[in-house]
Amino acid sequence: MSQIKVGIINVTGYAGVELARLLSKHPKVKLGSITGRSAAGQKLIDIFPHLCDIDMTITAELDKVDFAFSAMPHKASAEVIIPLVKRGIKIVDISADFRLKDAGKYPQWYDFVHPAPELLKQAVYGLPELHRTEIAKASLVASTGCYPTGALLALAPVIKEDLIEPDIIIDSKSGVSGAGRTLSLSTHYAEAVDNVRAYSVRGHRHLPEIVQELEALNTRLAPSVTFVPHLVPMSRGILSSCYAKLKAGKAGKGEDEVIELYRAYYKGDPFIRVVDKPPETKQTWGSNLCLIYPVVDVRTNRLMVISCLDNLVKGAAGQAVQNMNIMLGFPETDGLEALPLYP
Amino acid sequence: MSQIKVGIINVTGYAGVELARLLSKHPKVKLGSITGRSAAGQKLIDIFPHLCDIDMTITAELDKVDFAFSAMPHKASAEVIIPLVKRGIKIVDISADFRLKDAGKYPQWYDFVHPAPELLKQAVYGLPELHRTEIAKASLVASTGCYPTGALLALAPVIKEDLIEPDIIIDSKSGVSGAGRTLSLSTHYAEAVDNVRAYSVRGHRHLPEIVQELEALNTRLAPSVTFVPHLVPMSRGILSSCYAKLKAGKAGKGEDEVIELYRAYYKGDPFIRVVDKPPETKQTWGSNLCLIYPVVDVRTNRLMVISCLDNLVKGAAGQAVQNMNIMLGFPETDGLEALPLYP
Amino acid sequence: MSQIKVGIINVTGYAGVELARLLSKHPKVKLGSITGRSAAGQKLIDIFPHLCDIDMTITAELDKVDFAFSAMPHKASAEVIIPLVKRGIKIVDISADFRLKDAGKYPQWYDFVHPAPELLKQAVYGLPELHRTEIAKASLVASTGCYPTGALLALAPVIKEDLIEPDIIIDSKSGVSGAGRTLSLSTHYAEAVDNVRAYSVRGHRHLPEIVQELEALNTRLAPSVTFVPHLVPMSRGILSSCYAKLKAGKAGKGEDEVIELYRAYYKGDPFIRVVDKPPETKQTWGSNLCLIYPVVDVRTNRLMVISCLDNLVKGAAGQAVQNMNIMLGFPETDGLEALPLYP
Amino acid sequence: MSQIKVGIINVTGYAGVELARLLSKHPKVKLGSITGRSAAGQKLIDIFPHLCDIDMTITAELDKVDFAFSAMPHKASAEVIIPLVKRGIKIVDISADFRLKDAGKYPQWYDFVHPAPELLKQAVYGLPELHRTEIAKASLVASTGCYPTGALLALAPVIKEDLIEPDIIIDSKSGVSGAGRTLSLSTHYAEAVDNVRAYSVRGHRHLPEIVQELEALNTRLAPSVTFVPHLVPMSRGILSSCYAKLKAGKAGKGEDEVIELYRAYYKGDPFIRVVDKPPETKQTWGSNLCLIYPVVDVRTNRLMVISCLDNLVKGAAGQAVQNMNIMLGFPETDGLEALPLYP
Repeated sequence: MSQIKVGIINVTGYAGVELARLLSKHPKVKLGSITGRSAAGQKLIDIFPHLCDIDMTITAELDKVDFAFSAMPHKASAEVIIPLVKRGIKIVDISADFRLKDAGKYPQWYDFVHPAPELLKQAVYGLPELHRTEIAKASLVASTGCYPTGALLALAPVIKEDLIEPDIIIDSKSGVSGAGRTLSLSTHYAEAVDNVRAYSVRGHRHLPEIVQELEALNTRLAPSVTFVPHLVPMSRGILSSCYAKLKAGKAGKGEDEVIELYRAYYKGDPFIRVVDKPPETKQTWGSNLCLIYPVVDVRTNRLMVISCLDNLVKGAAGQAVQNMNIMLGFPETDGLEALPLYP
Repeated sequence: MSQIKVGIINVTGYAGVELARLLSKHPKVKLGSITGRSAAGQKLIDIFPHLCDIDMTITAELDKVDFAFSAMPHKASAEVIIPLVKRGIKIVDISADFRLKDAGKYPQWYDFVHPAPELLKQAVYGLPELHRTEIAKASLVASTGCYPTGALLALAPVIKEDLIEPDIIIDSKSGVSGAGRTLSLSTHYAEAVDNVRAYSVRGHRHLPEIVQELEALNTRLAPSVTFVPHLVPMSRGILSSCYAKLKAGKAGKGEDEVIELYRAYYKGDPFIRVVDKPPETKQTWGSNLCLIYPVVDVRTNRLMVISCLDNLVKGAAGQAVQNMNIMLGFPETDGLEALPLYP
Repeated sequence: MSQIKVGIINVTGYAGVELARLLSKHPKVKLGSITGRSAAGQKLIDIFPHLCDIDMTITAELDKVDFAFSAMPHKASAEVIIPLVKRGIKIVDISADFRLKDAGKYPQWYDFVHPAPELLKQAVYGLPELHRTEIAKASLVASTGCYPTGALLALAPVIKEDLIEPDIIIDSKSGVSGAGRTLSLSTHYAEAVDNVRAYSVRGHRHLPEIVQELEALNTRLAPSVTFVPHLVPMSRGILSSCYAKLKAGKAGKGEDEVIELYRAYYKGDPFIRVVDKPPETKQTWGSNLCLIYPVVDVRTNRLMVISCLDNLVKGAAGQAVQNMNIMLGFPETDGLEALPLYP
Repeated sequence: MSQIKVGIINVTGYAGVELARLLSKHPKVKLGSITGRSAAGQKLIDIFPHLCDIDMTITAELDKVDFAFSAMPHKASAEVIIPLVKRGIKIVDISADFRLKDAGKYPQWYDFVHPAPELLKQAVYGLPELHRTEIAKASLVASTGCYPTGALLALAPVIKEDLIEPDIIIDSKSGVSGAGRTLSLSTHYAEAVDNVRAYSVRGHRHLPEIVQELEALNTRLAPSVTFVPHLVPMSRGILSSCYAKLKAGKAGKGEDEVIELYRAYYKGDPFIRVVDKPPETKQTWGSNLCLIYPVVDVRTNRLMVISCLDNLVKGAAGQAVQNMNIMLGFPETDGLEALPLYP
């Protein structure tokens, strides 16, 4: 069988290297090109010795491929993607550059003027559980960010069914790899270990895509979202605790019915598990799973939904592969069957 | 100068051993008796080699002392404290046994009928920043729990000033030592490391004391509190992220005014720092500090207040010593001057 | 194709659950029976939610299977294995019960009299890189322990070639999962984190099998081995630093020749990587790899060989599967192709 | 009482900031000047919020002080110290710039030609337990490095008494703060966590001072030292495992006698504890203690000595303060009485 040749733009960040790990074992594609900026000319294994099976050299430019992933930082990603889109190559972008439908949000949240606003309409927001049908037809998919994946999957069923009030709080806890491979004092080991802190409290860049998608799920809601990310001392994992009041008119909705709603909503989604005990990030380590736990605080009539996932897999590279599988008509779980590593 | 002789009941848990560390260096008291149950007869240093300066043997019963700390678990603590109170010995209880004013809450939250409801009135809730005057006159102080300390200090100023709506969410992240020294699977290293999870989502035992004190601060408020604790992989530290809407009528209150309010409220409190950047648990490691960071989310008119502290110091043993200092008329910071260890 | 039905005795420890993870995705076998003692009657997923694809109930006794793994503790393992061996079922034992050829060592090192000394001759020591041919013919394989795997693979080439003096020091650093899932104070999170310590300094149980195999590799050597294991704060991984003087007569052997020797020795071994930079345990996380780094300290003419592996995979469950593959004539890498997770 | 005014040159590294923490609470000195390079002009608390009691501004140049500490990197430290020495200011240097007696070693190990070889003779090697008398008279003390402190204290008694053979192996495990506050990939959180690795295997810069001091202790020995440092995932702490054969002629020396020798050797040293169980780095966290555990492997007649300490206290800032106390005639424990924090 002739395999499809795929490429990774910017393989040297954590999303890129995780893509390489997953794609090298994918049954239907062949990893054919990997690029890096400062690392061009080096062997992949010299930078990432754990990828000992992949005998490839990093290049400055992408070779001819059938399908491309961009793991470039925002702004740079758009620049490299636009010519590829024009040449008709199907692409999954892991950056944020095509996630927001409103081009006007880019200067505000990402400090650049979007170079191709017309592509924002064409691009599909890459959260398979919400947009599978459009992803299947898309040639440019903007794979969802790590925090939005957990937050949206936690909230989608009750937003869609109009069960909660618009005041929504999303308190997220992320492992340190989410901050990437670029060095910084806050990700310096001695500063990050034994430590918890909130950051971007005045507005994290993932907020606008969360709001965009919640509004799309329920145009009547007008959600008022406070999203606060926290850094916790572990390598991988995001746990998001979401809080909202259940609507008074929906008082018949007890916890059992809420859980049933979630089970029904995610029926057929191979990577979603609606669980009945508080989930733990480690139960997803290295896998493409997202665990979701809805619970009703009967004292306050407040719904809490806790979700967790591996930020580098379902929050980045795994989701990108899942999007590719859908775009290319492969079984959605191809290359993503690994169970979590525990402990 | 004749020093006051103090004793620690149940020195072998993490609060007890931290008390021993602090009291052994206290300038005005002498650690004169330490008890343990299964460890009776052993030298303290054989169980805790780090306390290499303290040459004491653990006994089954408390010797004659002038002042006692109980670090027993709940229920057992009340049993050992009641006869001491009757003998006129001043006591700080680290357990929850005298924190709740309503005896009826003990069966509901702690699974036992309180053996001395009449003492609940006499006991003073041991959060110095809220009850310093009563603590100074008390003979039995129920030192505040680790989570309530962070939550109450974060919320007290705006509750007192009636600035927020009653819907309050407290999302707390605790290090593992908060679960104590008793073995359990959830605190087994390989299960707790690289992991974050919520627990006691249907109601943690610290909720009723949080509600009791918030109600006492503002009798008009009728707070509707959701409190969700999370376990994060570090030894020490609690960070609490608190969320509530600012009252509409108080619209003039911008963030600067809120910060000023906090600074004024905690003026003269030696262990409280109102900070202007998101605080980190590690900035309190080993100290009796509590850092408080109020911030207004202008998009949603929501107040967020983030507090952090060392759960074994300001959340347990340090606060107990602070209470003792107040009860005995010592400077409040005696024995508690250590700066945090960083990194 | 009719798959071979395999069973795991004592699935509830860390080796057992890792076996379940690996075997459930193995292309040529079907996991057909899992046993546990206190957990009998429970669903596997209720104890290990991460194994969400495996819908099996734990039983007290092993069902009829074609092939069995024992992950029982020592002594108990022998008791359960002996009747299975007599019934002709092929077995890989992860415990130490059939590793030592000299039955007299069991009372000394493991505190029990071996119940079937005659089986010790029949059993094959399960380190495939040293005993592949015998393993292929064996019906009972005693899979090598976690520490001996790293130490033996690091030393085998130079021992075999008689290049080093008999004074050998093995200083090993293990992650905490190596101590198993049974609760203990030394594996309690708050005690194990931020901490390094040596243990079993007067003789660890893995010493006799290390010596047995070194002696078998070179009957003239009479090695004098000091082996000191250390506990380090991470979940998985063992790094062993081995030290020995190069024999004077072999002075021509520079580092390049030593490296060549290692490369030649492990040529064709799919899980061994002889590397040219100090390896890191994390470069093996979740994989069956063993990385080996030989280096000569030219100041002292001392050879250092550093090896690392994942103690739960190449040090336990992965190696057991590798042994099974060899015993059943499957490709040695079946079910073990996963690349390490990094970071 | 008029306090002595002390200064810290380069307060912004981990040794510098730990010095600030210790000196700010020292009973007999006053921290009067702190310098930094890129941080000049900033408040100390803005860079290190945990030092909330110290209201000082970082300056580019040292103010007039009575006593100075240099926490500059090597080479830069000598440059700043030389003029101060000439002005008669007493100094403790935490860098390596005055530790080696042989100026010829600097180009080889530190890549610079020493600018003041004549001062190397005048400088005293700052390990108080070995050189207390000379330190008391010195005006320039080169405080011992973190690894050499643990290694030398572990080996000094048996070297001095000529009990061991010259083949010595020192296998050290260090927390990540030992690598300093300068950013690097190997100290990036996601790369350092869950990971153990050796580094500088071809010769670490701390080797020559270890050899120099071992030779000084016993001029007949001609030690052949292999020293291999390892990085382990914790913030603070160094554990060194030292191995050497006991001399045959000293066969009467059993373990009890060795322990007695250690106890006698360190009698009167306030920070040394000779312990009878394997020590743990965490038992020294935040304190100036060094724990030493000698044990004889009776199978091989090999002596193992395991030492541990907090690399930022006894391995850096605490030892520097201890040296200052001796130089100024203060009690040696002044400002260093804190017990370790555990857990």
